[in-house]
Amino acid sequence: MAAQTRSHSAQTPTVAEYVVRRLAALGIEHAFGVPGDYAFSFDDAIEASPDVRWIGNANELNAAYAADGYARVRGAAILSTTYAVGELSALNGVMGSKAERVPVFHLVGLPSTKLQRAGAITHHTFGDGVFGQFEQLSAFAACASTNLTPQNAVAEMERVIDAALAQRRPAYICLAQDLGLLPVSGAPVAGLPLAQVPQPASDPSVLDAAMNAILKRFSAAGSQVVLPAYTIARYGLQARLSAMLAETGLRYATTVMDKAVISESTPGFLGIYSGVTSGPGVREAVEGADLVLDLGGTVLSDFNTGGWTDELDPAKVVIVDTDHVRIGTQTYGPVSLADVITRLTTALPHRDLGPVPPPRPVEVRGAVSDHISSETLYPRLQQFLREDDIVIAETGLCVPGVAALRFPDGAVYHNQTLWGSIGWATPAAFGAALAAPDRRTILITGDGSHQLTANDIGSMGRYGAQPIIIVLNNTKFGVEEVLSAQPGHEFNDLAAWNYHQLPAAFGCDTWYTARVATVGDLDNALKRAAAHNDASYIEVALGAGDIPPPVPAEELTRLYHMH
Amino acid sequence: MAAQTRSHSAQTPTVAEYVVRRLAALGIEHAFGVPGDYAFSFDDAIEASPDVRWIGNANELNAAYAADGYARVRGAAILSTTYAVGELSALNGVMGSKAERVPVFHLVGLPSTKLQRAGAITHHTFGDGVFGQFEQLSAFAACASTNLTPQNAVAEMERVIDAALAQRRPAYICLAQDLGLLPVSGAPVAGLPLAQVPQPASDPSVLDAAMNAILKRFSAAGSQVVLPAYTIARYGLQARLSAMLAETGLRYATTVMDKAVISESTPGFLGIYSGVTSGPGVREAVEGADLVLDLGGTVLSDFNTGGWTDELDPAKVVIVDTDHVRIGTQTYGPVSLADVITRLTTALPHRDLGPVPPPRPVEVRGAVSDHISSETLYPRLQQFLREDDIVIAETGLCVPGVAALRFPDGAVYHNQTLWGSIGWATPAAFGAALAAPDRRTILITGDGSHQLTANDIGSMGRYGAQPIIIVLNNTKFGVEEVLSAQPGHEFNDLAAWNYHQLPAAFGCDTWYTARVATVGDLDNALKRAAAHNDASYIEVALGAGDIPPPVPAEELTRLYHMH
Repeated sequence: MAAQTRSHSAQTPTVAEYVVRRLAALGIEHAFGVPGDYAFSFDDAIEASPDVRWIGNANELNAAYAADGYARVRGAAILSTTYAVGELSALNGVMGSKAERVPVFHLVGLPSTKLQRAGAITHHTFGDGVFGQFEQLSAFAACASTNLTPQNAVAEMERVIDAALAQRRPAYICLAQDLGLLPVSGAPVAGLPLAQVPQPASDPSVLDAAMNAILKRFSAAGSQVVLPAYTIARYGLQARLSAMLAETGLRYATTVMDKAVISESTPGFLGIYSGVTSGPGVREAVEGADLVLDLGGTVLSDFNTGGWTDELDPAKVVIVDTDHVRIGTQTYGPVSLADVITRLTTALPHRDLGPVPPPRPVEVRGAVSDHISSETLYPRLQQFLREDDIVIAETGLCVPGVAALRFPDGAVYHNQTLWGSIGWATPAAFGAALAAPDRRTILITGDGSHQLTANDIGSMGRYGAQPIIIVLNNTKFGVEEVLSAQPGHEFNDLAAWNYHQLPAAFGCDTWYTARVATVGDLDNALKRAAAHNDASYIEVALGAGDIPPPVPAEELTRLYHMH
Repeated sequence: MAAQTRSHSAQTPTVAEYVVRRLAALGIEHAFGVPGDYAFSFDDAIEASPDVRWIGNANELNAAYAADGYARVRGAAILSTTYAVGELSALNGVMGSKAERVPVFHLVGLPSTKLQRAGAITHHTFGDGVFGQFEQLSAFAACASTNLTPQNAVAEMERVIDAALAQRRPAYICLAQDLGLLPVSGAPVAGLPLAQVPQPASDPSVLDAAMNAILKRFSAAGSQVVLPAYTIARYGLQARLSAMLAETGLRYATTVMDKAVISESTPGFLGIYSGVTSGPGVREAVEGADLVLDLGGTVLSDFNTGGWTDELDPAKVVIVDTDHVRIGTQTYGPVSLADVITRLTTALPHRDLGPVPPPRPVEVRGAVSDHISSETLYPRLQQFLREDDIVIAETGLCVPGVAALRFPDGAVYHNQTLWGSIGWATPAAFGAALAAPDRRTILITGDGSHQLTANDIGSMGRYGAQPIIIVLNNTKFGVEEVLSAQPGHEFNDLAAWNYHQLPAAFGCDTWYTARVATVGDLDNALKRAAAHNDASYIEVALGAGDIPPPVPAEELTRLYHMH
């Protein structure tokens, strides 16, 4: 799938240089990581690259999260860690990229082949002279993996890039330190920018059969609703989907995970579908439709369906997954999502259902002296949002609040709805901010989650990333407290950080920082943040009582006993 | 090996309660972790336990490191994380415990069997209804693993405890959330405190044969030196070794990894053996001896031998490993380290070699107005140390400096010399401080390493841990800079944190904090820290030029090309 154009440079690159150059051709301009001596050939190649900038994170898990956030915006990312200690620390982050289909290329430097052959007793091992045990662990977080040599590097890079882009999942690329310094064999591949890399191919006759089946279902259905999935953005199909919706007049809703996968200003957007916590009228429109067209494989997980309160009749759903179509018990594949969308655009008749009623206007409540609460906060965030904002929401109680906001034109939403690893959002916002320095990146996180990875704030300052960070301080793991059998668990309490002091301690002296406890404070801080010419950090002191249940209270006990 | 005494309590504990109670019987009083909904049965059982206190860390890797530090002091520890996201984040920390033989019991809560049987699309999964993939990854960091049920819990707990204590390595214990709430089947085992758990057994006839072989080598050797390993402390054999040395009059040295495994005030202590970076006269004494008795399996890794500059003739070495004896190509096992030490105590004749010459007195250099440097720092740390201090040294350039200090009576040293995962030391110091609140825990770390895990400072404050933290700020990953082919790599630079502001930002308002740049500042800060009735945090501004090579410069190029 990746381009096979071969280039002949005057000077043959080393294996490590070739890897960096080949990935840079996709349009990746930054590499996130932590250096290490076994990884020096990669580290040096990145530092010497004219195309890729080294970005040092506070630790490897943060680096993995940052790479994930970067790839969500840019389409792909590089993560660079060292053998064993580095790659294992990153594992959960890369596993999240696998779960949520984010192509992160994980480069890992191994001890030299000299050490490996000698069975040396060396650092980052069990001291038994055995090497290579960690490759299988790291590779489990990838859809393809390779151990490079000068001889195999050109072919192997094409193989793992093809796999990572076909599946939009991570690839694991390891390389012994000494081999990384040797010239690559064979003719290097120049590669194409990601946007020009062809979409996965369909089998033409299977595609025809799938389309016939889909169109048959469409013609039999009086009403139809589209559920586009997050994968639309992963495969870069936003424009294609928007065109299809415009041509057909179809209406659509998104789950929380898929929120703003295309602009929420798109005509026909009904709102968020998430079971009993859906937007006004959305549940009725989706579950009441004769046909629901899932475009890309929506994930009907607990966090994405108001705690499995969705009641979507499977018999009414046509699933166009990324590489196959499923209608009832019948599957068609290989069929690519891109091809189906293109075909639907012309194959379906245009229906004019009239404009979707606009969402209820936001009611901004609270007097300036009121203590800030979730109730007064979210309408103000609605007012704060601008076109093209990148909003990163952490797993937790902020998700329902943020998901309910109607995003301005071009604004996008990222959240780890399926993998749900708390701590992800802070470094992911760092990655996103570097990926799109001309847009605003807004991080909305809870205090509990923020504590896991807040040490990457210093890296944001070092590299001039300018996110607007909003930390909701309710003094505890709110979502855990809500899901617990009874409230009041000490294990859900947190160390009492003075969050607003973090940027200064981490060396971010030019940031705007504030701790706000009243509605008036918040209004002022948001105004200041919007005008500030660097990053901003606002600690919102909600207080311990502010734990809005993400689903109706009667569902919580059921969820506790399910989990 | 673990005790088989069975108790019958009035109320049958749940599986989760039983696990916590059984581990508490070993003498473990704290459980480090991050809560999660799949882990609520463990989290609740820990919170409800009268014996074990829940300790919330900032993240799971920190928790794993803290548990490691705790277990190094207490003999064993509990780590509690949730399914997938939690356990994978902890993986590198537990892997380090495996490498360095620290028994950490890693408790992981799994989704309920209801969810597993239903193939539910739920959080912390790939959304494919598949469960159980992460058990194999986590189990790789353990020497034994189990997936508990009410029926197997009593027997399985004995099996994994036996294995973990026999090998002094981690055990992985997972448990579905719903099964954790069910009463355990069978008669619970009460268990014994760790110190009363019998040492691993020897085969009596093999032990006799091994002893004969050892004694034969002894009688043929004119001079002998003992190299006791870190495992002496892991198996609680310090008193036994001290008695043996006293009875026999043997002299001993330790590698850096084994430093202060018994008190460095023990008569016969020669100093640190680490190749060309050995203490004065130690290399000659060790490499010049006719027989070197390795007691416990010293690890002759790069970081532990001055970069493999040791020249120990294998023909002269008798290795008494923890469960076998190796002399030349001959091995004897199962033979326990404990049994050999006991036998040697009476079997060897007493030799009076006279007192070891005392170490050179420390030369405290520098005027109060001098900028602080490594040269002026370490002699002051020597003066600062007290009896029974627990010194935690991070992987990095501080190791040679700290290793060269002569520790006062009862002071101990911990460092991840083999696994070498930077970031370990800060949470490990937290764990150690909780494990021994009546002793001083002194953390000596570099700025680069500290950045990975500094977010656990808040947890130290929350739980009243009172370490003395000394952060050596040379603005970069010094050890990486030293090992690089050329200096000046941007990837070895760090975000410019204001370290001394961290405790306040993390809510540690009662700590003594200081940033010191001169010798006088340092002297004053150490005085203040020694007198302060809470934790202390001293940022030592060494400056970017302070990167003392850990081995002679001519060895560095060789090491670069090896790694």
